[in-house]
Amino acid sequence: MALIVQKYGGTSVGSTERIRNVARRVAKSKAEGHDLVVVVSAMSGETNRLIALCKEVQSNPDPRELDVVVSTGEQVTIGLLAMALKELGVEARSYTGGQVKILTDSAFTKARIQHIDDAAMRADLAAGRVVIVAGFQGVDELGNITTLGRGGSDTTGVALAAALKADECQIYTDVDGVYTTDPRVVPEARRLKTVTFEEMLEMASLGSKVLQIRSVEFAGKYKVKLRVLSSFQEEGDGTLITFEEDENMEKAIISGIAFNRDEARINVVGVPDKPGIAYQILGPVADANIDVDMIIQNVGTEGTTDFSFTVHRNDYQKALRILEGVQSHIGAKSVSGDDKICKVSVVGVGMRSHVGIASTMFRTLAEEGINIQMISTSEIKISVVLDEKYLELAVRVLHKAFGLDQEA
Amino acid sequence: MALIVQKYGGTSVGSTERIRNVARRVAKSKAEGHDLVVVVSAMSGETNRLIALCKEVQSNPDPRELDVVVSTGEQVTIGLLAMALKELGVEARSYTGGQVKILTDSAFTKARIQHIDDAAMRADLAAGRVVIVAGFQGVDELGNITTLGRGGSDTTGVALAAALKADECQIYTDVDGVYTTDPRVVPEARRLKTVTFEEMLEMASLGSKVLQIRSVEFAGKYKVKLRVLSSFQEEGDGTLITFEEDENMEKAIISGIAFNRDEARINVVGVPDKPGIAYQILGPVADANIDVDMIIQNVGTEGTTDFSFTVHRNDYQKALRILEGVQSHIGAKSVSGDDKICKVSVVGVGMRSHVGIASTMFRTLAEEGINIQMISTSEIKISVVLDEKYLELAVRVLHKAFGLDQEA
Repeated sequence: MALIVQKYGGTSVGSTERIRNVARRVAKSKAEGHDLVVVVSAMSGETNRLIALCKEVQSNPDPRELDVVVSTGEQVTIGLLAMALKELGVEARSYTGGQVKILTDSAFTKARIQHIDDAAMRADLAAGRVVIVAGFQGVDELGNITTLGRGGSDTTGVALAAALKADECQIYTDVDGVYTTDPRVVPEARRLKTVTFEEMLEMASLGSKVLQIRSVEFAGKYKVKLRVLSSFQEEGDGTLITFEEDENMEKAIISGIAFNRDEARINVVGVPDKPGIAYQILGPVADANIDVDMIIQNVGTEGTTDFSFTVHRNDYQKALRILEGVQSHIGAKSVSGDDKICKVSVVGVGMRSHVGIASTMFRTLAEEGINIQMISTSEIKISVVLDEKYLELAVRVLHKAFGLDQEA
Repeated sequence: MALIVQKYGGTSVGSTERIRNVARRVAKSKAEGHDLVVVVSAMSGETNRLIALCKEVQSNPDPRELDVVVSTGEQVTIGLLAMALKELGVEARSYTGGQVKILTDSAFTKARIQHIDDAAMRADLAAGRVVIVAGFQGVDELGNITTLGRGGSDTTGVALAAALKADECQIYTDVDGVYTTDPRVVPEARRLKTVTFEEMLEMASLGSKVLQIRSVEFAGKYKVKLRVLSSFQEEGDGTLITFEEDENMEKAIISGIAFNRDEARINVVGVPDKPGIAYQILGPVADANIDVDMIIQNVGTEGTTDFSFTVHRNDYQKALRILEGVQSHIGAKSVSGDDKICKVSVVGVGMRSHVGIASTMFRTLAEEGINIQMISTSEIKISVVLDEKYLELAVRVLHKAFGLDQEA
């Protein structure tokens, strides 16, 4: 018997029939003797419908009022799920974010959770009731309704698990776990039984969009055991996200190959190699609210150096124009870029203590005649920027080279 | 400059375009220098959609959870109206029932308001903001979401006006006031400039469905000045509902002719004329949760009496079966009934001090050959039950007989 927080996303509760399915799954866990807190998103499509209504009234909706309207999506789902459980004879009670209460700051549409009051939930659990909580929402100190931003229901689930010291936080989604890479690119991709928090973080930020980054960070901070499961399959243990080093002793060196094609590269060539140059280049970009991902600066020669970074592809033209504007001020020879790139990353905590990962990666790509444009490394990943056209090929050959198609 | 509570029903806010219209009307009142609290219903059709969703999940929805789901309807409207006002440059802030807070008992789906906290609203009004409040909803002492039942938004409006000691509570609807009778039956029907609370109460309960009875009772209890207006007409002062006797000094004797055809009549003939017989007849009916409207018992002769009452037509068969079941126990000769009846009432505070109203009414009906089945009177109304086929004729001739087609 354990205390489990289960989170079901919009697709899992996309119709009343699916809500009844979720109720059956919750009832089954309850029958196994677990205490359950269930977090749900709005029915799929509902949040977009509500936002569209708001935009019909105000082209740039007031954030406070937007949250008032949008938060109704999850409120409908909690009530329906409670009814579905009662229909199965399982006692349940629903809570809005404000009712729990989930206290946030006042940053409407992107609020951050500050505190969770667990008294009402604990009383319900003690009375044998399933607790159902609206994801994605909270209240600030003045009682204003806030939302956590897109994907915030995952964060609600993890935050509740942390507050309740739950044994596990199960995120039910439309995939049945974290894979060694995207099965649509590499059919041999395997589901990982476990993945470490750091790997998951790299996998998520690198484009394996199973979980919201913020919820994973949150889980890491509070040491919440996260498990990703499919809400459409009856069987399967999904993928457990772990935080304990010793659990990883037996793990493979490399866990997966992540990739994305959302980015664009910008090069500033021949800038004076002097202190402050990185700030002079990236300051104006940051001022324009453009997020920068990879940043590469090589050791300079002959008093100048080359500086490269990647931005989201949507920000490419804007960032390029900004750099062209400051080029003479910086004293750079040229500014150029490319938005036909992709990023491929080899991720694994095992690489910390194993040499040769980088050389295997580079050799594998070289054997296929794939040119590497940029390289960036962290303790648990090596990322390369390639011409976009090589993406599938690179992912496939790396997946094979690191033996990810073999059962660990 | 006055403090005005305005309430807009579901039809008035039935689309984003109509919500923008309401915003323009509110902005106009604001520009005239008034302090405004605006109560809104769910967009028309929305409450029914939400109830249907609930019934898909649970055939007999759990009342607590039903309120959680259904209350989202008004929550969407308050956010949208606040945005529409901001779009017009008018500062506004929305409140759910729980945020105000409107404290109710815990009778889910039909809660009663117990207290309203006016602090937040007063602070907003002082700051020049329009306050927007979700109608129909509140919270109980434990923070559970409650709803006031159908039509509860009117009650919210009146209750807010009472709590804030507002100068007037304006109910915007799809009619432009209270008429001497239904203009669809009598084209000469006129809009009343004023109507007393008691008359309104009789008119509402007798089928002039402009306002919810409960809200009118509430207004009477707290002496709230109620005005009924059309949300679709730019001009017009609607009908003011008054509570002060002296305002009625100059009023016509009869204010209007109310009617309905929702009822059915049940007769219990030849019951022993002894104490407790009324309870023996009506007790089983009340136990079956059937509401009884008119009750008539005549003076008995030869130790027996006849007992008649009316119920809603939907309850007719059920009530009839109940009475047939207890007939022998009561010792009644026979039980019969008729569901092809109508009720027509002449209403007016003036009749208190004027004789001859009843005789004018009965003579007028007799002249048309209309047989009267039952008669019931109160201080300000006389109701008769007639064969349903005479309804339109009876209303027309009475409207003329009491001079209601003439300007007062």
